[in-house]
Amino acid sequence: MKQRLFTPGPTPLPEEVRLAQAKEIVHHRGKEFAEIFKEVRQGLKDVFQTKEEVFVFTTSGTGAMEAAVANLLSSGDRVLVIRGGKFGERWAEIATAFGVQVIPLDVEWGSAPDPGLIKKKLTAHQEIKAVFTQLVETSTGVVYDIKAIAEVLRTTEAILVVDAISGLGAQSLPTHEWRIDVVIGGSQKALMIPPGLAFVTLSPKTWSFVENSNCPRYYWDFKKVRKALDKNQTPYTPAVSLICALRESLRLLRKEGWENVLARHARLAEATRKAALALGLKIFSKVPSNVVTAIEVPSQIDANELRTMMQDGYGVEVAGGQEELAGKIIRIAHLGWMDGSDMIAAVSSLEISLLNLGCPVTLGKGVAAAEKVLRE
Amino acid sequence: MKQRLFTPGPTPLPEEVRLAQAKEIVHHRGKEFAEIFKEVRQGLKDVFQTKEEVFVFTTSGTGAMEAAVANLLSSGDRVLVIRGGKFGERWAEIATAFGVQVIPLDVEWGSAPDPGLIKKKLTAHQEIKAVFTQLVETSTGVVYDIKAIAEVLRTTEAILVVDAISGLGAQSLPTHEWRIDVVIGGSQKALMIPPGLAFVTLSPKTWSFVENSNCPRYYWDFKKVRKALDKNQTPYTPAVSLICALRESLRLLRKEGWENVLARHARLAEATRKAALALGLKIFSKVPSNVVTAIEVPSQIDANELRTMMQDGYGVEVAGGQEELAGKIIRIAHLGWMDGSDMIAAVSSLEISLLNLGCPVTLGKGVAAAEKVLRE
Repeated sequence: MKQRLFTPGPTPLPEEVRLAQAKEIVHHRGKEFAEIFKEVRQGLKDVFQTKEEVFVFTTSGTGAMEAAVANLLSSGDRVLVIRGGKFGERWAEIATAFGVQVIPLDVEWGSAPDPGLIKKKLTAHQEIKAVFTQLVETSTGVVYDIKAIAEVLRTTEAILVVDAISGLGAQSLPTHEWRIDVVIGGSQKALMIPPGLAFVTLSPKTWSFVENSNCPRYYWDFKKVRKALDKNQTPYTPAVSLICALRESLRLLRKEGWENVLARHARLAEATRKAALALGLKIFSKVPSNVVTAIEVPSQIDANELRTMMQDGYGVEVAGGQEELAGKIIRIAHLGWMDGSDMIAAVSSLEISLLNLGCPVTLGKGVAAAEKVLRE
Repeated sequence: MKQRLFTPGPTPLPEEVRLAQAKEIVHHRGKEFAEIFKEVRQGLKDVFQTKEEVFVFTTSGTGAMEAAVANLLSSGDRVLVIRGGKFGERWAEIATAFGVQVIPLDVEWGSAPDPGLIKKKLTAHQEIKAVFTQLVETSTGVVYDIKAIAEVLRTTEAILVVDAISGLGAQSLPTHEWRIDVVIGGSQKALMIPPGLAFVTLSPKTWSFVENSNCPRYYWDFKKVRKALDKNQTPYTPAVSLICALRESLRLLRKEGWENVLARHARLAEATRKAALALGLKIFSKVPSNVVTAIEVPSQIDANELRTMMQDGYGVEVAGGQEELAGKIIRIAHLGWMDGSDMIAAVSSLEISLLNLGCPVTLGKGVAAAEKVLRE
């Protein structure tokens, strides 16, 4: 059966990206790679909307999160962690593993943090060195107001560290303009390449944190990465075929235009939400993102049963809920190499599957609502 | 110009491996990936010659070296590091970064360590918790006698940690039979896939070291990796396209037969050495490996000039010397997806380039010597 992937990473790959990986490998210290890497470095600056360098790590996104903790802090430091889902929890776990003391700001899953509460925490705990947050909490589908959070931090000495792994490219994040100190991105999301690369960019202010940090690190060491850039290289052998793929995806995205890329994600997200609402379903996320739409499944059916039917019956693979949300929600991504017809296929399989499972939905109603958005 | 890669990683890719990466991406928590990963897990056990699990990390090889240090030791522990080249130095640097005290066993670059001296060090420093070594020190082209080193360790409580990143698959290393505690491998060497994956296998005894280690780690955590294997998964999104490539390469290598793979590397290495000797050149490595042949360049010419001529004139890319060996040696790899005709091309470009640079070599003499080995 023809398979279609609607998970919030990995996301489908354009042909150019797939084929770029299939080329003969080049040596990472040679001239040809230097040309590729130079282009990728510039492209990543555009994606991150910054003039600063964007570091490329061969790792899953979690590795880049660890790199941020290990390079910026010391054991015993205190940090504020916005904890509104599985990835907020991950920030806290990584910090704890490095002996960093976590002051949590717990946010109900499905909600976004209130910048006013962040301000309160920072006022009450002036020793806080950094605030760790997500741009999009992928587990709940919620987008956070990073602009407002960054403004709160301007009156303090603390740095803002944003996990934009799923959000980068799907959600506006002008790193320089909003004065965000650290932004982390991943490869297998809106950037439309396979998993295996993660990215970190740092504001100039952040380097004093790197100088003062005493956490042990070697592979993650930002100073080694920065030094290698002088020779237009990475300090250790990078995932060459993925970097070649990245060059292609950056070309495609530049051709589409960044504003158009963001607008496309917004439009597909709206179409998906409108479809779910038209089918009488509830959106789980109180502030829904353009990355993934988290939909509450009617209580009489199990979300995993619904997912299985969508995949086995119609080739549509969506994500389920994680941890406390397992069996309760499905998450339909509209991320990366996606268009309106892809979303129509997802919505169609959703409505047919719901009917199959005994939910009283009217066939075509969700699709029609999505089409209305797509037509505009 | 047609390019041929003779660097000790990345190495050329078979067509099946290149194309496997170009397939549509699959989700790392889905059924299709589970099938692939199951096959890869079994194949890696065969490569490592062990019944234990082989962990797959999305990282450069250096990351897996860091993982070994971070999981096995605690700050203040003492370890013995065999330091006979750039990668021995790397072990020491990583250990030092984690507060582990390094007792070095310095070996002249180009030589292999004397197991008797390792025994002396272990007797003099009974507190040594681990011995860190390479199987092949890629910077000098030397293979170490891991079997003898492992025997020395049997009378102690210390564990043996072998960086086999470049050697795995090119050099016999029966992990179980030789009772090696930790073996680390890399993807872009004899395994014939692009860089981006690294591997670690642990003996049962080693797990008590993991339990007692207090170094901070999260992404590298061996216990998290082991736990995820219960579900036939990795804890974090892995480099899916590289794992698909790995499945193909493991199939190719199994089809060739492991004994044949090792014999092929031995034969190509011998052909390369014989060719160099026939051209009046010296082999830099006192115990030359089957991974890469390090050749001293006649003092009247610069090794980098020779490399440039080989690459720009004849499309043959070989490695130079690293650190103190820069400009003094060239390193010709016979690693991975290579055959006799590949090595003839490398030797041919070497002898032509030497003559071009004014070295009194007889054209065809190196090639003839290599052919003699290949004909046997």
